[in-house]
Amino acid sequence: MAALTCSASDLQSLLGGAANVTGAAEYICTRFAAVSDHFVDTAYAVDSTYLLFSAYLVFAMQLGFAMLCAGSVRAKNTMNIMLTNVLDAATGGLFYYLFGFAFAFGSPSNGFIGRQFFGLESFPSPSFDYGYFLYQWAFAIAAAGITSGSIAERTQFASYLIYSSFLTGFVYPIVSHWFWSADGWASAGRADGIAGLWGALIEGPRMGRFDHEGKSMPLRGHSGTLVVLGTFLLWFGWYGFNPGSFLNILRVYGDAGSYYGQWSAIGRTAVTTTLAGSSAALTTLFGKRMLAGHWNVTDVCNGLLGGFAAITSGCSVVDPWAAIVCGFVAAWVLIGCNKLAEKFHYDDPLEAAQLHGGCGAWGIIFTALFAKETYVNEIYSGRPGRPYGTAHGRWWKALVSTHCPDFW
Amino acid sequence: MAALTCSASDLQSLLGGAANVTGAAEYICTRFAAVSDHFVDTAYAVDSTYLLFSAYLVFAMQLGFAMLCAGSVRAKNTMNIMLTNVLDAATGGLFYYLFGFAFAFGSPSNGFIGRQFFGLESFPSPSFDYGYFLYQWAFAIAAAGITSGSIAERTQFASYLIYSSFLTGFVYPIVSHWFWSADGWASAGRADGIAGLWGALIEGPRMGRFDHEGKSMPLRGHSGTLVVLGTFLLWFGWYGFNPGSFLNILRVYGDAGSYYGQWSAIGRTAVTTTLAGSSAALTTLFGKRMLAGHWNVTDVCNGLLGGFAAITSGCSVVDPWAAIVCGFVAAWVLIGCNKLAEKFHYDDPLEAAQLHGGCGAWGIIFTALFAKETYVNEIYSGRPGRPYGTAHGRWWKALVSTHCPDFW
Amino acid sequence: MAALTCSASDLQSLLGGAANVTGAAEYICTRFAAVSDHFVDTAYAVDSTYLLFSAYLVFAMQLGFAMLCAGSVRAKNTMNIMLTNVLDAATGGLFYYLFGFAFAFGSPSNGFIGRQFFGLESFPSPSFDYGYFLYQWAFAIAAAGITSGSIAERTQFASYLIYSSFLTGFVYPIVSHWFWSADGWASAGRADGIAGLWGALIEGPRMGRFDHEGKSMPLRGHSGTLVVLGTFLLWFGWYGFNPGSFLNILRVYGDAGSYYGQWSAIGRTAVTTTLAGSSAALTTLFGKRMLAGHWNVTDVCNGLLGGFAAITSGCSVVDPWAAIVCGFVAAWVLIGCNKLAEKFHYDDPLEAAQLHGGCGAWGIIFTALFAKETYVNEIYSGRPGRPYGTAHGRWWKALVSTHCPDFW
Repeated sequence: MAALTCSASDLQSLLGGAANVTGAAEYICTRFAAVSDHFVDTAYAVDSTYLLFSAYLVFAMQLGFAMLCAGSVRAKNTMNIMLTNVLDAATGGLFYYLFGFAFAFGSPSNGFIGRQFFGLESFPSPSFDYGYFLYQWAFAIAAAGITSGSIAERTQFASYLIYSSFLTGFVYPIVSHWFWSADGWASAGRADGIAGLWGALIEGPRMGRFDHEGKSMPLRGHSGTLVVLGTFLLWFGWYGFNPGSFLNILRVYGDAGSYYGQWSAIGRTAVTTTLAGSSAALTTLFGKRMLAGHWNVTDVCNGLLGGFAAITSGCSVVDPWAAIVCGFVAAWVLIGCNKLAEKFHYDDPLEAAQLHGGCGAWGIIFTALFAKETYVNEIYSGRPGRPYGTAHGRWWKALVSTHCPDFW
Repeated sequence: MAALTCSASDLQSLLGGAANVTGAAEYICTRFAAVSDHFVDTAYAVDSTYLLFSAYLVFAMQLGFAMLCAGSVRAKNTMNIMLTNVLDAATGGLFYYLFGFAFAFGSPSNGFIGRQFFGLESFPSPSFDYGYFLYQWAFAIAAAGITSGSIAERTQFASYLIYSSFLTGFVYPIVSHWFWSADGWASAGRADGIAGLWGALIEGPRMGRFDHEGKSMPLRGHSGTLVVLGTFLLWFGWYGFNPGSFLNILRVYGDAGSYYGQWSAIGRTAVTTTLAGSSAALTTLFGKRMLAGHWNVTDVCNGLLGGFAAITSGCSVVDPWAAIVCGFVAAWVLIGCNKLAEKFHYDDPLEAAQLHGGCGAWGIIFTALFAKETYVNEIYSGRPGRPYGTAHGRWWKALVSTHCPDFW
Repeated sequence: MAALTCSASDLQSLLGGAANVTGAAEYICTRFAAVSDHFVDTAYAVDSTYLLFSAYLVFAMQLGFAMLCAGSVRAKNTMNIMLTNVLDAATGGLFYYLFGFAFAFGSPSNGFIGRQFFGLESFPSPSFDYGYFLYQWAFAIAAAGITSGSIAERTQFASYLIYSSFLTGFVYPIVSHWFWSADGWASAGRADGIAGLWGALIEGPRMGRFDHEGKSMPLRGHSGTLVVLGTFLLWFGWYGFNPGSFLNILRVYGDAGSYYGQWSAIGRTAVTTTLAGSSAALTTLFGKRMLAGHWNVTDVCNGLLGGFAAITSGCSVVDPWAAIVCGFVAAWVLIGCNKLAEKFHYDDPLEAAQLHGGCGAWGIIFTALFAKETYVNEIYSGRPGRPYGTAHGRWWKALVSTHCPDFW
């Protein structure tokens, strides 16, 4: 901290005569510049700590998916689905490094696909650091993990590998480019934010096809313990997924020195996530009791995760009470979709498809209805050109999450 | 960082003549004020990061309880007890939001029960932020989780739900209000700190009754793997429970710029926690070998968790060597209680009751004997009116932990 | 923040006349000194937060080892090996506190063994804080955990306890003293850095003997689910093991106020770790398919962990693309060692021994070949006397990791 050291005797001699006024001013200002630089360094360290540990939590979701899958499939398929879970993470790592990240965030580029940063070229830069890549990778494999369950029992293993690589390396990055990159045609940095909703709605069914190809896994649960283990691990990891999406924590809203800033919005996001899941779990419990006369742990876990899927879209821009509404409705959406599936004689293999858009779609509507302007403005103020947009991007994320119900 | 920017030429012209002295002084002081504000923001970000990730760790204890329960009960009861674990977290989320937090921390209020912040009204404020709520919620459901094991096998499910809601929403918050709220009659902010000890001792048996209603789960272990998984997850989560209770980390003890501050006390707390558990586990191993001629993994896990339960009371105010003593005695207390239970022909169903106050009660005595004045003063200096008091509140926490042995 | 408060009217009167120049200069400089002190405090808080949560992640590896062991051994041995896992952590805690840390880091001392800080005496100091001890303890028990699997099924339990205490309390600390302590004969702070490589190569076989004493556990997998659970937990914990080894995050490389600093190197380390594991897993998958005509989840998990073991040596000083090479070769090294073992009719009991030095030894060669001078200089610049040296020390760490393959 050399430049910050202030020598009273030096400064004294500078202040002493009119001839030294230039020197005195420079002396003082140099020190303030050093202070400013130290704050920049400190912010990088604090934000990186926040981002990295959030990324680790999101990675823990992979573990949650694996355990949930293991508990949900028939015992004979356990090894197969475990393998796909490990490989999702591994192929994701490789392909997201090679081109996935470039497709998603490469800027400057056109609005359709990114064209920079293949193999992390030009990393790190003032815009992108390795921690950011790690977080986005963990996010991308979570998306792949969500769908892996749906198709694993009915596809050849080699086909699955191609599918998984394609999803993590191309589909997910390209769509996320549209929404999160500053150049993306649906970027939050642009005026046509509403395009994001449409894009998400159109894109949804496309990804959804992956679930129509065969048999679903309606959690017949060869092991309820593993289902609960997986559910709790996902809950744990969701604290990286939702509050972590802010990407940094040291950012004040309004005046400096206030108690109110991004740290508070992050805490609120953790609370809305918690409450939506809790509310959905309890609603499912009582709803099932009323309708079916019984309840079971798998239903409640399903409901809980449906609540998380629904709130993921709007988690950062709604009030806690609204999150309870979100979870309450999400549970009924899930129950309703299940009922519909039964009525139309859709068997287990297709139940997944019925649920497909349920909770996630409700989450998008919910966000549109309950998003609080103050929160949206706080989160976006002053950085329209940033390469990501939390609440906006979350609409897409919500869409990704619509894949949950068929799996969960 | 606009206000922190220092222009040498501007300052030079201000310093140049006597007429501008006012301007020069204001110019300089404005920048120092900006620096001060930036430090406030930085502290909020750092402390929130610390608190949020600690809360996530405490939440992971819920996962530990679930796995410990799953491994400890007879296989046929697994689903039932898994469900109570998920619901503890979910009902806890809802009721702690609606009134639990208000009862616990609502201030100004009377000494018996809080009356502010229902549904997180007036959040965030300079005193309370969402991250604080999240931490306290995770803490409250851990308390509920501790007792859930004891009663799950012998109560109707609906009764359990009511019990669990009541515990998280009323009993726990109200008692924690007495100790942790600035208005609480046993608050650390008051002179009558000793009342806390008495309150804890009196309160103990009351909560204990929940364990007398039926059968206990003496870890007959249908799965030792799950018991170890649960034990390690609880150990992992305890690093959020004990060191996390400091709630913030950026606080210097004594002069600024020293290497010694709250970060150091937090590290020491993690070390005392580790050593107490380690010492108790090893003591149990050899104690059991001497007394029973054999050892097993369940006994050692029990001993380990007994050590954690005992140190939780005084973890932040004792030296590491004392923590080893704490764990050593805790192990013998646990063994002794078990022996006593046998001698008086108490069956399994009541073994829990015998162990009930054991390790936790020893923890309170231990704290009274070994607490180091320096540490107590450091932790409390200069903030008598804060809405929580770590070491003091921990006496109550210790009491909560006395519920462990019957369950572990 | 009293000393940072700046009063414009006070400063104005000081600046007003030549007689007050001394006072004005002191007034201003005192405030800059306060700012500097606040930065020191902030850095302690940020770095401690980073270090503590990294330590918790490393501790989670213990959980990963336990689950991997549980899934890998024959069902009848589960309880026994679970117990050794719990006791590794517990005896490690006690002995590392009593003398392990002193042997490893006690300074001033001779080059062979440390002689300070027994029982954490003189803690905390400007050099060592409790968080540092906790991190090193978690690291030490991970080393013990690695070998525990290899010997547990074939040694008497009492012998194992003595072995484990000896390893964590003596062997590991003494060797780590040689490399990480400023006084160690192979310290990175000295010129004879190459000695580290030799020391590691010589030391390797010595520790390796522990694996020759009996039967290995070639992951015949009584539970693939537990193997995957353990593998993912180790992956999760490795983010504490590798990026966490930087020990602090708030350190700028080059000029203050730049986007580039230790936070960036830490992120890069997390990325190289991820890529090496991913690349090794995929290489194993296809390699096994080509050679054996099939693949299975255990092979892939083995490959993945072999990739981690290999990259652990050089993770902080290589580029991401090099990490892919590292993992690719590590997978073939593992496959090759297995083939060799088969050819020479080494049975399962000794397969471990063949693999012993494989991936870890390759990791040391890899580091020598691919380490980037810029990265090495950034990490070591300006602190030759620090009690640890990341990249250098990692050579030893890599050696420790050579124990993985026999176990994984």
